[in-house]
Amino acid sequence: MNSSYKKNRSDKVPIPHSLLRYRELLDDSLRLSVPNCGNSVYKLLEYAMGWIDEDGRPVSKSKGKALRPTLCLLSSVASGGTIQSALPAAVALELIHNFSLIHDDIQDKDKIRHHRRTVWAVWGNSKALVAGDVLKIIADRSLTDVKDKGLNSIISNRINGLLTEAYLEMIEGQYLDLDYERRTDVGISNYLDMVSRKTGALIRSSMNIGALLGSEDDSVADTFRKCGSAVGYLFQVRDDILGIWGQETLTGKPVGSDIRRRKNTFPVVYTISKIGGSDKRELLHIYQKDNIDDNDVQSVLEIMDKVDTRSYAQDFAQSCRDDAVKLLSSVNLVTKPHKDLVDIFNFLLVREN
Amino acid sequence: MNSSYKKNRSDKVPIPHSLLRYRELLDDSLRLSVPNCGNSVYKLLEYAMGWIDEDGRPVSKSKGKALRPTLCLLSSVASGGTIQSALPAAVALELIHNFSLIHDDIQDKDKIRHHRRTVWAVWGNSKALVAGDVLKIIADRSLTDVKDKGLNSIISNRINGLLTEAYLEMIEGQYLDLDYERRTDVGISNYLDMVSRKTGALIRSSMNIGALLGSEDDSVADTFRKCGSAVGYLFQVRDDILGIWGQETLTGKPVGSDIRRRKNTFPVVYTISKIGGSDKRELLHIYQKDNIDDNDVQSVLEIMDKVDTRSYAQDFAQSCRDDAVKLLSSVNLVTKPHKDLVDIFNFLLVREN
Repeated sequence: MNSSYKKNRSDKVPIPHSLLRYRELLDDSLRLSVPNCGNSVYKLLEYAMGWIDEDGRPVSKSKGKALRPTLCLLSSVASGGTIQSALPAAVALELIHNFSLIHDDIQDKDKIRHHRRTVWAVWGNSKALVAGDVLKIIADRSLTDVKDKGLNSIISNRINGLLTEAYLEMIEGQYLDLDYERRTDVGISNYLDMVSRKTGALIRSSMNIGALLGSEDDSVADTFRKCGSAVGYLFQVRDDILGIWGQETLTGKPVGSDIRRRKNTFPVVYTISKIGGSDKRELLHIYQKDNIDDNDVQSVLEIMDKVDTRSYAQDFAQSCRDDAVKLLSSVNLVTKPHKDLVDIFNFLLVREN
Repeated sequence: MNSSYKKNRSDKVPIPHSLLRYRELLDDSLRLSVPNCGNSVYKLLEYAMGWIDEDGRPVSKSKGKALRPTLCLLSSVASGGTIQSALPAAVALELIHNFSLIHDDIQDKDKIRHHRRTVWAVWGNSKALVAGDVLKIIADRSLTDVKDKGLNSIISNRINGLLTEAYLEMIEGQYLDLDYERRTDVGISNYLDMVSRKTGALIRSSMNIGALLGSEDDSVADTFRKCGSAVGYLFQVRDDILGIWGQETLTGKPVGSDIRRRKNTFPVVYTISKIGGSDKRELLHIYQKDNIDDNDVQSVLEIMDKVDTRSYAQDFAQSCRDDAVKLLSSVNLVTKPHKDLVDIFNFLLVREN
């Protein structure tokens, strides 16, 4: 880690400055996009965005990483464009991401996210479902801003198309993820296909759209798109590592929480592909149980240790990071935002929450 | 009822020809809009649209009334336009409507719709939620067809805006409906405001958009919009009547089902506004109970009889129908589709499912 990392807490990998640089600008634009009218559904949205607490009191600082919009803005500047032209698309990306979190938490029955109760945990499934639908519409509306920015209309139509395809892919990926639950025949390639949609689609299109706006050059935009695919895997595999070995004080989830939920994440899929005999029988047996207890989690962790799953997963994340860095170095980019992007990739490899 | 009504079943008010006229054309266009690709989420959508059964076998006939797209097409032709120019908007309206049904059934925990199990009842909440999200995206995509039809671009942009606002209003209305549950202070005006959004928004915009495409004349489109508002109330109040006094063999729901679910529908809100003393105490007490049994339903029905709620509700629906007819007669319209629209309003007043 170099000096461009800011320490937030002594025990935590600090968030790099590059992720915080446009935070205020993004927050202001996001707040403008969510209407502040009478209907109380908007209270749920302000809560979901991290602006107020459960009782409606303002929260001093938003909590999320705003990864996707920041990647979009940096990709625009790195490839010769401006922040301003990429801002509406960046806002749409963050709103779509937040919409997906609201519905995801309902699907996964997750009660806590970023150390706060999730929307459904506070207001119930039905209201959370509607709140997600409303946020999705607001995201759609913010896209019309992309068109109004006096952009080349061919580019602006393509950006709209890219965003629509990205969230369709994302939701198809969520469906695959649900479909994989309780299955024990999910291979690495199935897993990567699912992640490429569920997580990859939005990250990939963030960089693709940013570069398309910045360069108006298809080959540059395509390189950023490929880079975004690598970043998507990097993000998710590190997330999967944290879902099993992450520190509870940092992630807000107990060790082994993804095992307890029988998630077919990268470490699990890899482990199943490597083991055999009694280890395999035991792991598959545990994954078929209705309730997975502490002993079961311990057994799975021990089986994973035997085949060095954690190192393998981290190595995979590292190679995705290397891919991403290499792809960017193949294009002629503006130095500072280029370095900011690499800083973010480095952070994603070691983040602890 | 006159001869333009086709008898489907001897005990049922027949669906008018005017609602069936474009059924095949609509079905073909709807099927083209839903991709038939590998991801199994599309199976849920084909089921939701009524094209296949739970096992994926084709169903011979779609079941829904296709009210909104038919109103859109007829409004276009009645005001001097074509079917073809209004078809993409009609398709989008029907897809948005079906998206809302999938999410509505999750919210209301409804297991049966049109005598078939609902999507969540077959595949579970999570997959149904995702399926709804996918259908919503497909509806958005079908809107881009509106733009590609070589229409006046000002009109096509306005139609996009009208549709977006309509489904935002619709979802805000769904939120209000959820918010009203278990409340006993919901007045007629609150109820009408909620219905005007939840049900009215899409019906109103169906007629508004159809007439805008047909006439390209704001004042004609505005008259259709007002007419659509009246049709929205007509549709919902008749729906509320069926939710309490409808025949189980026709609606698929037992008598009093909306009472059992403590829904604040028109008959309930009206009754509460008319009664006092022990009747009021009893009704409010029943509506606060966790489980409403057959005796409770019977008591509520008796209280409603005392203040003639059923007649009052039907009279209200009748006056909405009269309003709708009167509004249309104030514009110079093409005779046949004008008569078709009036036939549909007449049907909505007496339909039994």
